[in-house]
Amino acid sequence: FSSLYSQIELNITQICLAKECSEDEIVEELLRLNEDPKVHGIYLHLPPASLTSRVLNTLKPEKDIDGISDLNMGRLVRGDLSKVFVPPRASAVLDLLEKHEGKTILLVGGEGSFGLTLQCLIEKNGMVALKSNWNSKSLQRQVCLCLCVCNVVHSYSRWLQEQQYQPWHLRTLKLQPLMPVPSDIEISRAQKPKPVDQLAEQIGLLPEELEAYGRSKAKVQLSLLNRLHAQPDGKYVLVAGITPTPLGEGKSTVTIGLVQALSAHLKLNSFACLRQPSQGPTFGVKGGAAGGGYAQVIPMEEFNLHLTGDIHAITAANNLVAAAIDARILHESTQSDKALFSRLVPSVSGVRKFSPIQISRLRRLGINKTEPASLTPQEVHTFVRLDLDPSKITWQRVVDTNDRFLRKITVGQASTEKGLIRETGFDIAVASEIMAILALADSLEDMKNRLARMVVGTSRSGQPVTAEDLGVSGALAVLMKDAIKPTLMQTLEGTPVFVHAGPFANIAHGNSSVLADKLALKLVGRDGFVVTEAGFGADIGMEKFFNIKCRASGLRPNVVVLVATVRALKMHGGGPNVSAGTPLPKEYIDENVDLVAGGCYSNLRKQIQIAHLFGMPVVVALNVFRTDTQAEIDLVCQIAKECGASDAVPCYHWAQGGRGSIELAQAVNEAANTPSNFQFLYHLEMPIVEKIRVIAQKVYGAEDIELSPEAKAKIDYYNQQGYGSLPICMAKTHLSLSHMPDKKGAPTGFVLPIRDVRASIGAGFIYPLVGTMSTMPGLPTRPCFYDIDLDPVTEEITGLF
Amino acid sequence: FSSLYSQIELNITQICLAKECSEDEIVEELLRLNEDPKVHGIYLHLPPASLTSRVLNTLKPEKDIDGISDLNMGRLVRGDLSKVFVPPRASAVLDLLEKHEGKTILLVGGEGSFGLTLQCLIEKNGMVALKSNWNSKSLQRQVCLCLCVCNVVHSYSRWLQEQQYQPWHLRTLKLQPLMPVPSDIEISRAQKPKPVDQLAEQIGLLPEELEAYGRSKAKVQLSLLNRLHAQPDGKYVLVAGITPTPLGEGKSTVTIGLVQALSAHLKLNSFACLRQPSQGPTFGVKGGAAGGGYAQVIPMEEFNLHLTGDIHAITAANNLVAAAIDARILHESTQSDKALFSRLVPSVSGVRKFSPIQISRLRRLGINKTEPASLTPQEVHTFVRLDLDPSKITWQRVVDTNDRFLRKITVGQASTEKGLIRETGFDIAVASEIMAILALADSLEDMKNRLARMVVGTSRSGQPVTAEDLGVSGALAVLMKDAIKPTLMQTLEGTPVFVHAGPFANIAHGNSSVLADKLALKLVGRDGFVVTEAGFGADIGMEKFFNIKCRASGLRPNVVVLVATVRALKMHGGGPNVSAGTPLPKEYIDENVDLVAGGCYSNLRKQIQIAHLFGMPVVVALNVFRTDTQAEIDLVCQIAKECGASDAVPCYHWAQGGRGSIELAQAVNEAANTPSNFQFLYHLEMPIVEKIRVIAQKVYGAEDIELSPEAKAKIDYYNQQGYGSLPICMAKTHLSLSHMPDKKGAPTGFVLPIRDVRASIGAGFIYPLVGTMSTMPGLPTRPCFYDIDLDPVTEEITGLF
Repeated sequence: FSSLYSQIELNITQICLAKECSEDEIVEELLRLNEDPKVHGIYLHLPPASLTSRVLNTLKPEKDIDGISDLNMGRLVRGDLSKVFVPPRASAVLDLLEKHEGKTILLVGGEGSFGLTLQCLIEKNGMVALKSNWNSKSLQRQVCLCLCVCNVVHSYSRWLQEQQYQPWHLRTLKLQPLMPVPSDIEISRAQKPKPVDQLAEQIGLLPEELEAYGRSKAKVQLSLLNRLHAQPDGKYVLVAGITPTPLGEGKSTVTIGLVQALSAHLKLNSFACLRQPSQGPTFGVKGGAAGGGYAQVIPMEEFNLHLTGDIHAITAANNLVAAAIDARILHESTQSDKALFSRLVPSVSGVRKFSPIQISRLRRLGINKTEPASLTPQEVHTFVRLDLDPSKITWQRVVDTNDRFLRKITVGQASTEKGLIRETGFDIAVASEIMAILALADSLEDMKNRLARMVVGTSRSGQPVTAEDLGVSGALAVLMKDAIKPTLMQTLEGTPVFVHAGPFANIAHGNSSVLADKLALKLVGRDGFVVTEAGFGADIGMEKFFNIKCRASGLRPNVVVLVATVRALKMHGGGPNVSAGTPLPKEYIDENVDLVAGGCYSNLRKQIQIAHLFGMPVVVALNVFRTDTQAEIDLVCQIAKECGASDAVPCYHWAQGGRGSIELAQAVNEAANTPSNFQFLYHLEMPIVEKIRVIAQKVYGAEDIELSPEAKAKIDYYNQQGYGSLPICMAKTHLSLSHMPDKKGAPTGFVLPIRDVRASIGAGFIYPLVGTMSTMPGLPTRPCFYDIDLDPVTEEITGLF
Repeated sequence: FSSLYSQIELNITQICLAKECSEDEIVEELLRLNEDPKVHGIYLHLPPASLTSRVLNTLKPEKDIDGISDLNMGRLVRGDLSKVFVPPRASAVLDLLEKHEGKTILLVGGEGSFGLTLQCLIEKNGMVALKSNWNSKSLQRQVCLCLCVCNVVHSYSRWLQEQQYQPWHLRTLKLQPLMPVPSDIEISRAQKPKPVDQLAEQIGLLPEELEAYGRSKAKVQLSLLNRLHAQPDGKYVLVAGITPTPLGEGKSTVTIGLVQALSAHLKLNSFACLRQPSQGPTFGVKGGAAGGGYAQVIPMEEFNLHLTGDIHAITAANNLVAAAIDARILHESTQSDKALFSRLVPSVSGVRKFSPIQISRLRRLGINKTEPASLTPQEVHTFVRLDLDPSKITWQRVVDTNDRFLRKITVGQASTEKGLIRETGFDIAVASEIMAILALADSLEDMKNRLARMVVGTSRSGQPVTAEDLGVSGALAVLMKDAIKPTLMQTLEGTPVFVHAGPFANIAHGNSSVLADKLALKLVGRDGFVVTEAGFGADIGMEKFFNIKCRASGLRPNVVVLVATVRALKMHGGGPNVSAGTPLPKEYIDENVDLVAGGCYSNLRKQIQIAHLFGMPVVVALNVFRTDTQAEIDLVCQIAKECGASDAVPCYHWAQGGRGSIELAQAVNEAANTPSNFQFLYHLEMPIVEKIRVIAQKVYGAEDIELSPEAKAKIDYYNQQGYGSLPICMAKTHLSLSHMPDKKGAPTGFVLPIRDVRASIGAGFIYPLVGTMSTMPGLPTRPCFYDIDLDPVTEEITGLF
């Protein structure tokens, strides 16, 4: 019945005074309401006998929306239901309430008032189905009786309680895993997700905090953080991995399997917070990002395709900046200062005015004037000319498609662009700095400020030019206003998942959003778990999670889950190379405990040590494949514990769902209850070079670093511009702890070369480039789109993973 | 209460047999259910006394989902409510019903079964709030009694009835227009839209036909067309315009004002079907597309920004084709036939198999084989090599941003692309052929087939290469599967609007989607109205609406509304030029009846005649501006009728909303009830050149046409490829009836030059180019994004129009 009430879009909440309510009780309730700041007004709908002068005088005048006597007095005869249902009364109430739209008005009434509310509901929502039966006396009586009782549930105290944290009453979905395990999309399609509004209700979200996008996904409003600000956070778990093979080791499936085990089997509230995948690879090389087997987010096709449009919003925002850059260069090249000024600050009805964004620019330029006519010619010149150096524009365009021919292009070749051609390129959309900002912002305001600070290039005089200088930052915030809300989905077992942001793991920090984690930590409650994942190996994703994401969010993790596979361990132990698309060498199929031990004592041990650098307890999760033998499994767990892991357990979530990860869930629960001593690896005040060196030596095991002249020059420039105290986001291969992808295990004695250094000022980090990073994937000869199809009758998708 | 029932996501529908139900009545009901193809199964929940052997034998075995005796027999004691509510029964029923997921199962039961259903509901939805009160005896009784009564409403016959057309019970929103008229966004924000699910219910949509995207917009499923296929269509009204000034004459506001008047004031069901605007111009030059003043679609910022992501989906699909083209050229250039074949038809677990999309290609090549090994080397060569001629690729990339520097670019300049550079360009996203397809498709299957047929370029041997040849057409359909569903929104007065597709009006046909019109025509019912709009002047948008869109849809319009303004008429009567961004000359501000008369007798008369060519009655709508005088207004109406308009009326919707368009609504209603004799302008079998000539002479008033050598060659090529019987989509300036933008009025005696001819084979039209058409707008010196901002606290947008 709560859904019935939530349909009243007027913020009416009823409070029920029982039939036997005494004057004292009414007065007491009103005194409470008078002082409640959440209640903006009160509509008294009491029988005349109850409207004593003491009651009337108790209600504060500022909370009295109808002057009391206006609609109530002397109209209602107790028990005479027919009078309650006279439609004009409902319209009058509706009109009155509509005047107070957006406010919370309480209807304080006796038994008869429920009929009135029901009638309001019908008037407002036009539910004629019921209305046409309205004349039946028996219906009136029964409905009314019924609502009387319901209202006890929906009393004022109930409403207040709803504003508080709600314990979960999650109804999980049953899994009946098949053998052999079917394809990901078959498994996904065989499980019908709960309607997302039901899922939301089960985890304590209020209906008004949810914005559905179809039936299986919804955005969650950030206002939740205010409502639950007093609620203690749950436990915060990071899933990281050992240095992976090019095939990936299954961090996402471990993450999803773990929350399925925690929520559906151990009955501990838990949330997975995942990255939204780029749509490019979905049509390029096989491999979904929604997990796999019986540990998936469903519907997986929604997860892997447009989702709720966040990446499309990022693309639109990123490319608006790009268009603004080139158009500005064109207009500056063809107009005098005066012409530019009169266009940038046009006369509207005879008045010239700076827009707020222009006043910000003036302030940054040290011009503290707000009257356009008062600028000197030199000030006009400084104001109107960004004077961007075309060779120093760092902003690239983006598409969410694997389009390799856009890696390097020449733009501006049409005659309309007057010869202002220049070389530039497109990145894949998730490589946009705006994606990194979305992941790190902790409020709408923070996002807006970061968008304004983004540096798009350098002026000919060497000054950084920002998105705000281009006048575009407000528009960017508008384009991103919905993208900032995390998207709620569910696992195969009906447990909640947030999908939000998916920045690159090399040129950016490779972690899902701060905001999704924060919302989830409030929702799971003190004893619950939020499990999130860091891209690539622990040396990259985890290091950035701690030093960049945790610094931005202020959150402190409790446990690191380190994912390993026998396959990857064998590679680190000396096994031959593996690559996507070719059959696995036999070392990876047959038992080989020596290779496994070699991998454990090198890469696994080193990655555990890296987590310990940050003071974190580590649980090793061995993602078991069909070819792994018991001896191999036992060996990994044994050595992992020997190397300092709090625990090490095999996981079977891919074939069994949450049931296959119960042991992991128990180990994580235990580790989360041991105290952790989290610490950052470096202080922000350290010089940029020192911060890079600390990461290279302590995390990667390098002997030292070596800076190219370009890198040195850039660092000097960033120091001079005041960017010296930003954290470091290393852009290094994920296939080795070193910069050399073929050096497996735990290499030592190498010098890490820093080829160049770049900066994402809006996102807030400096990123040194170790080697070259491709920011635009390509399509293979036979992209997986060959198999993807849609049945036009059933609307079912086939061939997607 | 209907919302309560709709929450049962199992497709349970109850039918209630009254307490006094006789065996005959039960049997009769069952016999009907046995034969109803919409009912997939029946769950009998009758008191044992009613389960006679005659009843049991009546139910068809294939409709019996529980073997009757399994759960029902001998368990329920009539009147003993406590037994009904035993939770395990509900779980058992749920489990049983879940096995039949996706089917429609009816619960046939007596009074007690409602309790059971309620319990199922609670089990499924986890509404513990009620559940925790479950032990109260009185609650049980009251809820149960209540639900009994509700169930009469929700009986089987009721369910059947719901599947039928529902009369509207629209609750309109009141408007209180202010003077002076505030900005569009202020007006939009001052009106709170109805929740979109309420709007949907009010116009007879079933909850399962709606997919909400947030609170104020929703996609509507195409299955509605099946459900209401027997329902007669409403009246179909096209809003077109005289040749406009560069400022636009307000066709969208007339469209919206007209439906506001029809629905909210004349109480005639009506729907506006509008185009989705490109997001590019939203941030470029001011001018929203959601209407304006008191005739708007709300919330206007949702309308003008991402909406439900359709244009983003088009961008993704369009650019996937582009990436596939260049990647394919690269792979063909670097691999032998054999290597290509073994990659395109890979061995999976030792088996090589063609994908369905490859078999289609083989068939088109005349190779009727399905076994990869059986192809001859020549057949392998033919199959693997699209052999695209890089200089004859017609497919462009798109972005939904005004990015002029992408008009002409060189791609492939990175070393990874091995020197395969080529010149190409980006169009604005709405210029994509995929947008034209979305607008013309009449089902998912039709869209998929059109996407497959799209020609992206020509092989070196002169054969057209299609999206299906690239293997990408299934993936395109997947990317577009949600975009094909129209988006429901509302006007300022709470009347329904579909927003769907927005193809260019010159290189494409400039009309919103066929599917939105079809859905709306069913929803409004026989006496209702669907009002849609054609881009540019009637010589362009209306001509294409008739000859292209109506041909594709099979729909026949009833009335043309021709929008005129005094301003545009004065221009056609000889007034000076007007252009956006500069003040209007005084001729347009002061009364000047001579100029008005001149415009009426030239352009207005000609545009009325064009509509008459198609056998359509015309109502002239004069969109009144503040500066228009009564003499001018009267003159326009008088001359319009003199020139053959059925009626001509002034409209004041901008300042007054629907109330200001009542006269227009009455005139349209009257004209719609006169018989129309709709006819096409040309037969498709006419030669391409003749079709172009007919349009040029009859519609534009040209003496003849003149084809360039390129145009002639292209026409020969299209004829040879079998494209000769496609309709024609002229790409001509909208600023004159001729090809010369400065020739106002109704020019005659000119020869229309056809510079080039192109084809959109998927969309299904040939488009001759008269002059050059820009398909990528630019940003001005001060784009309107300077004023656009977001308040991070209230989340309100400012400065958007």
